[in-house]
Amino acid sequence: MSARLLDGHAVAAAIRDAVDPDVRKFTASAGRPPGLGIVLVGDNPSSEIYVRNKVKAGAETGLWVDLQRLPAGASLDELLALVARLNASDAHDGILVQAPLPEGMGKQAAQRVFDAIDPAKDVDGFHPVNVGRLVQGRPHLVPCTPSGVIVMLEHYGIPIARSRAVVIGRSEIVGKPMAMLLLQRDATVTICHSKTPDLPAVASEADILVAAIGRAGFVTPSFVKPGATVIDVGINRVTDPLTVRDLFDAGSTRLADFERRGAVVVGDVHPKVADIAGSLTPVPGGVGPLTIAVLLRNTVKAAATRIVAV
Amino acid sequence: MSARLLDGHAVAAAIRDAVDPDVRKFTASAGRPPGLGIVLVGDNPSSEIYVRNKVKAGAETGLWVDLQRLPAGASLDELLALVARLNASDAHDGILVQAPLPEGMGKQAAQRVFDAIDPAKDVDGFHPVNVGRLVQGRPHLVPCTPSGVIVMLEHYGIPIARSRAVVIGRSEIVGKPMAMLLLQRDATVTICHSKTPDLPAVASEADILVAAIGRAGFVTPSFVKPGATVIDVGINRVTDPLTVRDLFDAGSTRLADFERRGAVVVGDVHPKVADIAGSLTPVPGGVGPLTIAVLLRNTVKAAATRIVAV
Repeated sequence: MSARLLDGHAVAAAIRDAVDPDVRKFTASAGRPPGLGIVLVGDNPSSEIYVRNKVKAGAETGLWVDLQRLPAGASLDELLALVARLNASDAHDGILVQAPLPEGMGKQAAQRVFDAIDPAKDVDGFHPVNVGRLVQGRPHLVPCTPSGVIVMLEHYGIPIARSRAVVIGRSEIVGKPMAMLLLQRDATVTICHSKTPDLPAVASEADILVAAIGRAGFVTPSFVKPGATVIDVGINRVTDPLTVRDLFDAGSTRLADFERRGAVVVGDVHPKVADIAGSLTPVPGGVGPLTIAVLLRNTVKAAATRIVAV
Repeated sequence: MSARLLDGHAVAAAIRDAVDPDVRKFTASAGRPPGLGIVLVGDNPSSEIYVRNKVKAGAETGLWVDLQRLPAGASLDELLALVARLNASDAHDGILVQAPLPEGMGKQAAQRVFDAIDPAKDVDGFHPVNVGRLVQGRPHLVPCTPSGVIVMLEHYGIPIARSRAVVIGRSEIVGKPMAMLLLQRDATVTICHSKTPDLPAVASEADILVAAIGRAGFVTPSFVKPGATVIDVGINRVTDPLTVRDLFDAGSTRLADFERRGAVVVGDVHPKVADIAGSLTPVPGGVGPLTIAVLLRNTVKAAATRIVAV
């Protein structure tokens, strides 16, 4: 193990410290705190945890967080009506609809809901207008996870300009916006995916390697140029003992955790990458904490922009 | 010279052949032809030529083309008012504002005008909603030049999936949408630019190399993997004899053309690349003709979608 570990909790705290005075300033001048509406449909256990953490972090930061729940059997129309109400509300500066939606709502439901959110309140940055503005180099609200990765790189003084960056994964939530943010900071950016031939060879061209594919331990040392910065966006819950034993050495604390709990959360990057990378984000404790911190920042930004615009 | 030359006129003719029946069908069912509004501000000589060619091609294809001119001294407000009128018009299915706008309108003028065009009529694909939809893999109206390049590659059976593609240039009009279109077709895509170190080394990883930087003859053989497909998007008018003599051999017809006219149009790719590339688009006669053909296709698509939507 030689890689420097990049501490997501420390960077998240720095983001929240920077947001605090903006919250106070907004609250003083608007006569109310910035408001974040969170919509949770159904009772997916992971979503419950994510939403609980968002509500808690928002309250700690002095936001007004309005959690709106709909039952798992709610119709898409009911959800769209709720979004329309939040769009029209003056007290809600940001709106977030927690994914995934219940399957019964249909395959296109999430995109239809994201399209329906007022772009000025779209703190997740999923509306096509916000995606387009990001690509055009005039971002307003940018997806939280890739934004957090940029803050992390800057916090640790890792140079982006003139670097080669490789992003594995082309999702709307991480891969594509990540590529655009790196490109705007003058990295030379390669986007890889499941159909890329010889992925290890392509990945090992990277000075900055971002793994966002959702496969536990997929990125092994053969993917990594010695000394590279490796950003692990994956959050995978693993219950298969064989997989876990491939990932962790006998006698390691992570393996002991697994033996005790029957499950362990691991990233997309194999732990052995720590022997070769220059810098590495751990899972948990790396990219994860940044996402919520940027959500708070986006909410305050949306609030401040709306008030100026009004 | 060993590269196969990819014939833009032939591919453009194929696109227009495919559009013809759609024009007839629309005209029969709507009782009017698809309508394209073109706005030309001032009297930039290159713009005059581009617009003339668009008007001519549109008319030949059976579109109604409405050329609206504003004087070079027109204000941004006058231009925005004209765009608003075309947005509201039922007879205009597509709207195109020819760039560049007069400098007097200010630096942000073009983007403000593109933002003001109804996304459903945005046949250039520059509105942030259309950019966002492209990134999200549900494109509606896509910028004409990169769309044309995709048609060219498909026409000649050049495989995109599983290829490595390198795009040099990160403009909104070509570079970024080109990268997205290649990515959606399962290429592994690298975006390079003026700040990329060792550009020849990066470029020569490409199976498909797209040059869109606006520098005459910039892409020399050292940028090209033997056998690669090279797409030259550049259209550069060169008047400097030294530059021209570096590009063309003594006794070549292009050099003779230059001696006679005092200027020559060349791409971003050096002619010597023809010795090493597998396939190459010439300039002129490569990508150029595709742009207008796709503009016609976009107009008919916008028309058909609007009528269905109404």
